[in-house]
Amino acid sequence: MQRYFLNQNADEDQRFFITDKEDIHHITNVMRHQIGDKIIITFENLKVYTCVITSIDDTEIEVELEEAQSNDTELPVEVTICSGLIKADKYEWLLQKSTELGASHFIAVQMDRSVVKLNQSKVDKKMVRWNKIVKEAAEQSYRLVIPTIEFVSNLKGVYVNIDKYDYVLVAYEDVAKEGEMSEFKRALKQFGKGDRVLIIFGPEGGLSPEEVELFKNNGYIVGLGHRILRAETAPLYALSAISYEKELMG
Amino acid sequence: MQRYFLNQNADEDQRFFITDKEDIHHITNVMRHQIGDKIIITFENLKVYTCVITSIDDTEIEVELEEAQSNDTELPVEVTICSGLIKADKYEWLLQKSTELGASHFIAVQMDRSVVKLNQSKVDKKMVRWNKIVKEAAEQSYRLVIPTIEFVSNLKGVYVNIDKYDYVLVAYEDVAKEGEMSEFKRALKQFGKGDRVLIIFGPEGGLSPEEVELFKNNGYIVGLGHRILRAETAPLYALSAISYEKELMG
Repeated sequence: MQRYFLNQNADEDQRFFITDKEDIHHITNVMRHQIGDKIIITFENLKVYTCVITSIDDTEIEVELEEAQSNDTELPVEVTICSGLIKADKYEWLLQKSTELGASHFIAVQMDRSVVKLNQSKVDKKMVRWNKIVKEAAEQSYRLVIPTIEFVSNLKGVYVNIDKYDYVLVAYEDVAKEGEMSEFKRALKQFGKGDRVLIIFGPEGGLSPEEVELFKNNGYIVGLGHRILRAETAPLYALSAISYEKELMG
Repeated sequence: MQRYFLNQNADEDQRFFITDKEDIHHITNVMRHQIGDKIIITFENLKVYTCVITSIDDTEIEVELEEAQSNDTELPVEVTICSGLIKADKYEWLLQKSTELGASHFIAVQMDRSVVKLNQSKVDKKMVRWNKIVKEAAEQSYRLVIPTIEFVSNLKGVYVNIDKYDYVLVAYEDVAKEGEMSEFKRALKQFGKGDRVLIIFGPEGGLSPEEVELFKNNGYIVGLGHRILRAETAPLYALSAISYEKELMG
């Protein structure tokens, strides 16, 4: 059954109206749903219900709550993927795949070695598309929340907010080349439920020594295995490992 | 320094000739290398050397071994990613990313629910491109071996060869939905150095019950976390987790 997000709180006594233009288009024109059809709605209070469509018109679709669904598809830790600006197509699939793998927030940063240069106005245009990609990936992967995306013009702008996080990790290729193979797992083992984790990844050219130096005293400088991962691949490794360590038993 | 593969064994008393047209083009036209420049060559016997270019012409480039490099970038287990045929662009990046993450072999299978249909002759055309993608990804991620790719026209054709593997895992969305969260880690903990591991992933529509049934008695039917991963994402999760479990300490 197709899933949609509704930024209201579920309440079993209520009916709800879907007014988002794209959702209405998707329900009526893409899925060709009729009155009486069922969809799944994820509400702002993280409740998930199968709902019956009770009326359809151009501006709103009315649904009635039917059955509560129990599924917690969120990672036990709240992961922020902070990465350097990279080529558009690569960043778009980093967003899509990292959303599938459970990231909660994204920070796109104009880093020292970012070949791609964006200013705020260019970013504003991209944000519309970025948020659409993340919303659709969240729906497809049954996420309960849609990840947020922000742009910061340099890594110092991220550093000033590190008190918001319980753990800060910096994925640094150079320490991996030197054989650093224990810090990442050492950090993950300590993560507790609900902890906020910031993980920083460089652009294609990698992080500059100055950027790494910023976090040297407040973060774990980690290597992610023996191979050189591209800028868009490293976040997927980190998120997969967090799920493996924290979600899987055995 | 740029890396190239040479299908000869390194021998410190020897000079070597690069005769692969694409490598010659890359060295002379893309990298614009001159006599005296250095490149890194990975030899068939898994030895890696920095080499000096001693002569360049249209048909061959002569290099002289300079310094042995020590780097083991291969996963401790030999992983075969067996996946259903999926849309071309998605399968191509599955190949690229899985190579970065350490896969040794790929088997593309025409599965029950594969929307994409290919016959051997169509596959032969694609193989050229697929092998190029895998070779370039292996060079960029400093792999010591180039993964192999084969096509099998249905999953029974894979089943008849399972004796080749020490472990067989089947990533099955339906058991994940039912909350299966321990088999994958239970299997990984048992992997020993050099073990051959086959991991089977469905196409966009997932594996059919009949396909899963095939491996029920010989394999681990595993879930990969709480989120629904796309066909092209699940292999990256598995490979990242294997690296995390087997390569990282702490």
